[in-house]
Amino acid sequence: MSEKTTPRILQGFSELLPQDQFMFDSLMEKIKNTYKKYGFYSIDTPTLELSEVLLAKAGGETEKQIYRFNHYDNDLSMRFDLTVPLARYVAQHNQDLVFPFKRYQISKVYRGERPQKGRFREFYQCDADVIGADTLDINYDAEMVCLISDVMKELDLGDYCVRINNRKILSGFFDSIGLKDKITDVLRIIDKLDKMGKEKVVEELSEKGADKDQIEKILGFISISGTNHDKIASLRKIEAGELFSTGVDELETVINMAKMLGMSEKNVSIDLSIARGLDYYTGTVYETTLIGHENFGSVCSGGRYDNLASYYTDKILPGVGISIGLTRLFSLLKENDMLNGIEKNETSVVVLPMDTGRFEYAAKVVKVIRENGIKCDIFWSDKSGKAKFKYASRTGAGFAVAVGETEETNNTVTIKNLETGDQKEVELEKVSEFFR
Amino acid sequence: MSEKTTPRILQGFSELLPQDQFMFDSLMEKIKNTYKKYGFYSIDTPTLELSEVLLAKAGGETEKQIYRFNHYDNDLSMRFDLTVPLARYVAQHNQDLVFPFKRYQISKVYRGERPQKGRFREFYQCDADVIGADTLDINYDAEMVCLISDVMKELDLGDYCVRINNRKILSGFFDSIGLKDKITDVLRIIDKLDKMGKEKVVEELSEKGADKDQIEKILGFISISGTNHDKIASLRKIEAGELFSTGVDELETVINMAKMLGMSEKNVSIDLSIARGLDYYTGTVYETTLIGHENFGSVCSGGRYDNLASYYTDKILPGVGISIGLTRLFSLLKENDMLNGIEKNETSVVVLPMDTGRFEYAAKVVKVIRENGIKCDIFWSDKSGKAKFKYASRTGAGFAVAVGETEETNNTVTIKNLETGDQKEVELEKVSEFFR
Repeated sequence: MSEKTTPRILQGFSELLPQDQFMFDSLMEKIKNTYKKYGFYSIDTPTLELSEVLLAKAGGETEKQIYRFNHYDNDLSMRFDLTVPLARYVAQHNQDLVFPFKRYQISKVYRGERPQKGRFREFYQCDADVIGADTLDINYDAEMVCLISDVMKELDLGDYCVRINNRKILSGFFDSIGLKDKITDVLRIIDKLDKMGKEKVVEELSEKGADKDQIEKILGFISISGTNHDKIASLRKIEAGELFSTGVDELETVINMAKMLGMSEKNVSIDLSIARGLDYYTGTVYETTLIGHENFGSVCSGGRYDNLASYYTDKILPGVGISIGLTRLFSLLKENDMLNGIEKNETSVVVLPMDTGRFEYAAKVVKVIRENGIKCDIFWSDKSGKAKFKYASRTGAGFAVAVGETEETNNTVTIKNLETGDQKEVELEKVSEFFR
Repeated sequence: MSEKTTPRILQGFSELLPQDQFMFDSLMEKIKNTYKKYGFYSIDTPTLELSEVLLAKAGGETEKQIYRFNHYDNDLSMRFDLTVPLARYVAQHNQDLVFPFKRYQISKVYRGERPQKGRFREFYQCDADVIGADTLDINYDAEMVCLISDVMKELDLGDYCVRINNRKILSGFFDSIGLKDKITDVLRIIDKLDKMGKEKVVEELSEKGADKDQIEKILGFISISGTNHDKIASLRKIEAGELFSTGVDELETVINMAKMLGMSEKNVSIDLSIARGLDYYTGTVYETTLIGHENFGSVCSGGRYDNLASYYTDKILPGVGISIGLTRLFSLLKENDMLNGIEKNETSVVVLPMDTGRFEYAAKVVKVIRENGIKCDIFWSDKSGKAKFKYASRTGAGFAVAVGETEETNNTVTIKNLETGDQKEVELEKVSEFFR
């Protein structure tokens, strides 16, 4: 064979080297364990579904991004999010599920956009949702705030703020100032406040037909400030109809219950400018900012929706959910040198037989270490002592355990801490004790 | 909306209900942790690759099974195994990897066969491989035997046997009896001995042109019996050239080192009829049988290959690897009622506020339990007491923690063991102690 195919992956796809993958997996594990701690169960839907099913709701922009193709007689699509498969799953297995149904799913999704720098076409989403049958208590919205907060604490990425709003407040308010017909447009424009600035927002609002008075009211509204309770108090002073009042009640309940569940004031903040682009949110909405890294945008977002699966079933399935785009988050953390706090492979050990005559004794050592549940590799290759220690260091292991003739005679091993360089001869029967 | 799309998944694809998914995840976790314990690192390659890259080596049957399609200017394929992506990964990232490179990957793969009962078109493979640069010590083959064995112990599916052979023994032997040109055919036929029986094997060998004398020698060879050391001794008596002798040496080394690493005699057995269908194995080959469930076929298989990535690089990359088809295994365990031993969700707790006035106190209880790292759900819905307990039971939780007016007054909770029905009032500050 002389003609070689150049090994490469597609643009917009990513794969990590083992050391980075270890940290990536560690972040994923933390998210997963926090979801589980809150009583969420995992599901694992297929990557490929019938286009007819997966795209029942989709249209326009979404549809253009789908990896879609024919295979035998089937028109197939790769999933582009985890929400549509959840809707399909809940509608399909309705009879066998316990409601409220709390599920998490951590899986890759696929968006076949034209290649663009910084855009992933395959990426992990980490979703947690609670789905009610007919109704779902507002306190679930409060729990989601705490869940986001606990995930942020576990990920240990510094200070963070869960910003929270309620779509009913927005809808009610805009209705009351006579912009009901333009709510969707106006919400989309407001949603871009952080990215585009006030001037541009005013310009766009005006283009959409809002008059000076309306724009002033809008700007006044979204600049309500103070503590969460100040904001609630300011909102209470606005007369804007029933939907608006319900929204304020819900927001207050969520803020209060989140506090009772242990949420600290400094980590949760009402932000009336948050709308979330998606049309299906109908109540509480969340975004999460890393303090000092506001340019990352929201690292965990979500909200409440009235009805999850209307395209598949007549059953009314309200829900509330959150999502973390882990591939993007990891890439930001790496770019900004923020991976130092993440767990590395320090607990692992590499056994180094110093010569081939030591294999039998080395095997015994490995057996003892692994039996104690400690991660243990062994280097069997017949290389120089230097090459052996280099291997141990480069794998990222915390310790090398050297086994030579002297050690075998003494029934010991020599343990070298690869970070500090310290080394120590330890009796074989005390090895596991040493690592504990 | 009255027109509904019927929610359904594609034939050959599977998804589980939460209780089954919990057990599936638990098996996967055990496999993963055992791979890690042996010093393997995870990698996570893309699901979609360029067809030119992914199919560099493929042909014939494999190619027909690929989900392959065009997207913009790219000809894309979904991975059909984890070995080709590993070869591509190692060739591509060669400079950044530490050799021997020990990687595991647990991911879904895709085989777009025509739908057939019992065949999965999307399924998990759990692969672990060690790749050497230029050479790879034979003791790595022995470690793989122990790895398989430890995985089987962890999965706790009863007695098992790792059956082991060496392709050099087979190749050498068939060369010596004048069937060198037909080695591939003969190996394929022998490989089917378990499935088809002796008579059919004789018939097929004869069709391929083996004469009576040759067939007799073959049958004699694959019926060599006794302990592993008896078998080695019998093999030593056969004169069949250098390749054959090397194979016997390797097999003996692997058997001996596996024993030193703690492998029990009863769990490893030389089986000269194992060849593995795949053409690329060149040395040690493994299959794993669950005793009493031989009809499952091999639940963990693999072997040694001379050169992993010749289609991508001139570098010589010998390796040894194993693979578990977890989706198929789980489906067999479920069908045969063998999931009872698998961990269920017994450690988790559901807090039940007995009335809406108890939400604040219930929130406090939840906070205390979760802070202690215990999985804890809370049922916020305003339903009857019966409905609340039913929810707790149906989620599969081990305990319900009821919180009513009395409990709040006493600063206690009532903990009900959902399996035994026992219940007990416990002081709030002793709740975490209770669950530990």
